[in-house]
Formats: sequence, structure tokens, C-alpha cells
Amino acid sequence: MKHYTNGAAFIDQEIVPISEAKISILDWGFLHSDATYDVVHVWRGRFFRLNDHMERFYSSMEKLNMAIPYTRKELHSILSSCVKASGLREAYVEMITTRGLPEPGSRDPRTCTNQFFAFAIPFIWITKPQNGLHLIVSERQRIPAESVDPVIKNYHWLDFVMGQFEAFERGGETAVLIDSQGNIKEGPGFNIFSIKDSVLKTPAKGVLQGITRKTVLELATENGFTVIHGNLKPEEARSSDEAFATSTAGGIIPITKIDDQIINGGIIGPITKTLHDSYWKLHDEPKYSAAINY
Amino acid sequence: MKHYTNGAAFIDQEIVPISEAKISILDWGFLHSDATYDVVHVWRGRFFRLNDHMERFYSSMEKLNMAIPYTRKELHSILSSCVKASGLREAYVEMITTRGLPEPGSRDPRTCTNQFFAFAIPFIWITKPQNGLHLIVSERQRIPAESVDPVIKNYHWLDFVMGQFEAFERGGETAVLIDSQGNIKEGPGFNIFSIKDSVLKTPAKGVLQGITRKTVLELATENGFTVIHGNLKPEEARSSDEAFATSTAGGIIPITKIDDQIINGGIIGPITKTLHDSYWKLHDEPKYSAAINY
Repeated sequence: MKHYTNGAAFIDQEIVPISEAKISILDWGFLHSDATYDVVHVWRGRFFRLNDHMERFYSSMEKLNMAIPYTRKELHSILSSCVKASGLREAYVEMITTRGLPEPGSRDPRTCTNQFFAFAIPFIWITKPQNGLHLIVSERQRIPAESVDPVIKNYHWLDFVMGQFEAFERGGETAVLIDSQGNIKEGPGFNIFSIKDSVLKTPAKGVLQGITRKTVLELATENGFTVIHGNLKPEEARSSDEAFATSTAGGIIPITKIDDQIINGGIIGPITKTLHDSYWKLHDEPKYSAAINY
Repeated sequence: MKHYTNGAAFIDQEIVPISEAKISILDWGFLHSDATYDVVHVWRGRFFRLNDHMERFYSSMEKLNMAIPYTRKELHSILSSCVKASGLREAYVEMITTRGLPEPGSRDPRTCTNQFFAFAIPFIWITKPQNGLHLIVSERQRIPAESVDPVIKNYHWLDFVMGQFEAFERGGETAVLIDSQGNIKEGPGFNIFSIKDSVLKTPAKGVLQGITRKTVLELATENGFTVIHGNLKPEEARSSDEAFATSTAGGIIPITKIDDQIINGGIIGPITKTLHDSYWKLHDEPKYSAAINY
């Protein structure tokens, strides 16, 4: 009897327990981080904005000259199978395409057969929902778009990981990285928003076009707030009235401290609260979510 | 009966055929490319400059806050075991440390147990030895040191892979990337040297400190050649008398065409030939190589 309670994966056309989910050590997805992925979450048994995640996933693959033999409908079905096998009602569901292995002795990516993987594991929070996040602005630069296009969701995270170590050393919980001009970009798996005088601001370029970020942009407009897409300087972020991070791993996450500066007295602010509550309400709407047939 | 002819790997304290060598899909080495590695080659049954590769490997781990429970002597023994199991006299031998898996639900790298892997596969050439390389200077920028330190050998290769696709489109075989000022940096797994009026030039910063590069620097000095460590512009490279790439995957590889410019009439040049022959001669010297006890 196999145990799927910690999660389930789709590998080599089969559903297996997450503990058995392994990839070849020679796959360029590992040896060259030559891979793209996307993560959709399941809340109360429903996928949230699955079509948006799938669209971005197929778009990322196309930009990397990769393809999988599955239609969107088949992909939806594979992801559902992982969730169903796990039995999870709240899940973090990842789809991955790697370059695969080249022909023996070759270094030509065109000889590779792309590989597809998927898995569902229990929902992950960047930070526990009861706490606001203590964010550190790192001096490390996010890998620039001139090297790797951040719109293609990718695993090049060593800059983020080293930023996280820096955050711990400085007493924070996580870090955002900057660009070569010193503007704030993004953190490991999240976009950032700052609020001043009821106007929202978020970095425009050189960041992942997050689906939660997109949802916030829509909700802000619906709620009558102005959003500026532009450069966000560290000192500007530190003097925010409110700030929050957006991620599939937790939704809208209030930031209550940036470097040594406490934001909004260390508690979640009113606009953040409004957006947060609106965000979670969308999860029951059929327009944004798709029920899993367990 | 297990077959090791295509290579052998060390995984979970065991030697297994390379076809069975797999890592967990949840290892941050895959999901975040949070890993470091090194590659040493075996030629005629001897490791070449193994101590240099091991030193760099331990140094890379330290910079990433990683550690393995093996001394240098134990590491040497593990790598030998992989080669012995494979029976290969000419091999490409890789040692890898990954961050590992965090505690369930955590995103804190400090909760991870680092994982170690190694494998030996048949020797790989960047290009077949009879041919000179046709190199393309890409407009793509190598991931800068401000994001990820290139001295730490890492798997962040999407910039290289996209450069390779560009090279194929433009009729070349591989590509070097540039920095934000347009200086040539490095290619996928290789450093570059240009020669003009018997003076060698190689990029000084923002590149991997390759062991083959180091060997060339030593041989050039021994042979009385001057080497400039400095900025190498694309137009300067294209007007070289000679040029070559250096890599553990092939040693000193002549470059006979850069973009549309043929170098040295399309044949290997005299200084490149001298260095090339000296390089291969070192492989039998006990100072530089260590015999494997098959």
C-alpha cells in the first residue's frame, strides 16, 4: 500500500508518492537548470486561476524552445490526478518541463527529449498568515533580463538563496533583490507592492509577471485604487504606509518591517486587509477557480 | 547483473549504474538550482589535477554555506570508485553538492540537509578534436557576479543554453556571452583566450577560474609567452591571430572562426598547437595526475 499523504507526483506517465518522485541526475533540468515551471494552488478543493498558470507555462516553454505532448485539457487532467492521489484540499501544485538528456557525448540541446513532471504537495506559506513579514532589502542584484528573462519562470535562484542567508544574518525573514540601479525587484517566489497615500506601487520590469500580482492589479482597480508601475527605491519602500508581498505560496502577505523600519506600526494595514480579503473571496468564484473532482 | 558501461554514480552511499542515478524532485538542487559542482577528467586511467578540482569544490561549498561529511581523501576515494565501477579509462567525473530538502512546509535553507552525488561517464568533448570551433559572440549577457559569483561553479546555465540556440541559428557551434559593457566573458563550460602578436589575452573577471585556464596560464609562462588578463572586445577577438577555448571537456580547443571571421586561415595556429601538446603531455606527470587503481 503506497502512501500519498505527503504528496503525489506524475513521472514517466505514472502517479507515484512524492517520496518516490525522482529525476535523472543527467537531465539538463538539473545539470544546467535548463527548465521552466509553474505553480498553481488548490484551496478548499479548487484550483485558483489554473488557466492563467497554464498559459504562462506554455508561453515559458515556447520561449525556451521546449514542448510537451499534452494539450491544456490533458495538463489540467494530470494536475488533477496528482491532487486527487494526494487527497489534499489545500495544495501547492507544480508543473515542470526540463530540457531532458542529450544524445550520449553530445552537448547539443536540440538532441534532447524534453521531459515533463508534476507534483502536488501540502500548501506552502512564504510566511505564516498570522505574522507580518520582516523583509530585508539585499544589495545583491536579481539576475538581469539581459541574462535570463524573468518572465520565463525559472529555477535560477542562487541569488535569492544567498539573499535569504543575508536576511537571516540581518535579523529578517526573507529578502528582496535590487537591479544595477538600486531599484527593488522581487524576492524568492514573490512580487512586492508598496502603498503611500492610498496609491499602490510595484516594480514594472525585470520581475516575474506573477498571477497573484495580476490579481492584485485587478482588485486594486475594482476597489478604486491607483497603481503605479515603476521604479521602487529602498528608501521609498521603507517609508511606505503599507507594504505586502504577493505569491501563489500565501496570496497577499503583509510586510510589517523593512530593514529596521517598522511599517504601519507593525500591523496589517487597511488597504492590504481589503485586498487580502477580496483575494481570498475570489477563490470560491467559478470564474477564477475550478473544482477538483476528488 | 548491472551494467555500468555507460557510467556509474555514487548516490545514497551506494555505487549504481548511471541509468539508475536519480535525485529527489523536491531537492533544492533541482527546484532552485541551489547546488555547486566540479568536474575532473580521467585520461589514460589517471585523474588530471584532482586536487585543484577538489579545492575549488570545497571552496564553492563554503561560499554557499554547504558542507559534506567527507574529507578530501574520502572524496578522492568515492570518485575513484565511480570510475572503477564504470571501467572507463577516459572519463568525465562530476562531484555535486545540493542544498537538499527543507523541513516540510519550510522555505528556510538552514533546515536543509545537504546532499552529495558523484558520477563518472565517458569523456565529453565540447567539440571533436579534429575540428576547430566556430564560435559566435552572443549579445546575451552572462549572469553578472553581482547576482551569482561565477567563481562558485554553478548550474545557472539558461543564459548559455539560449546563447547556444542563437549560435545554431547563426551557423555557429557554440557561443560566448558578454558583460554589460560588451566585453567577452565565457561560454558554456569554457574560458576563452585570444592571441595577437604572440601575446595571449583572457578575460580577468566575471568568469569561472577554470583549471584548464590555470594550466594554460602556467604553460604560457613556462613557454615564455606574455598573458594579459583584461577586457576582450568582440572586434579584438575577431581580429586574433589565433584563439582557443579551455575546458575540462576537451582541454585546449582551437577556435578557427569567430562570427563570420575566419581565424588563422581556418586551421590550428602554432602557439595554440604548442600549448595543446604541452597540455596533453602533463597528463602523464605524477605532479599533475593521479593513477586510478582499477
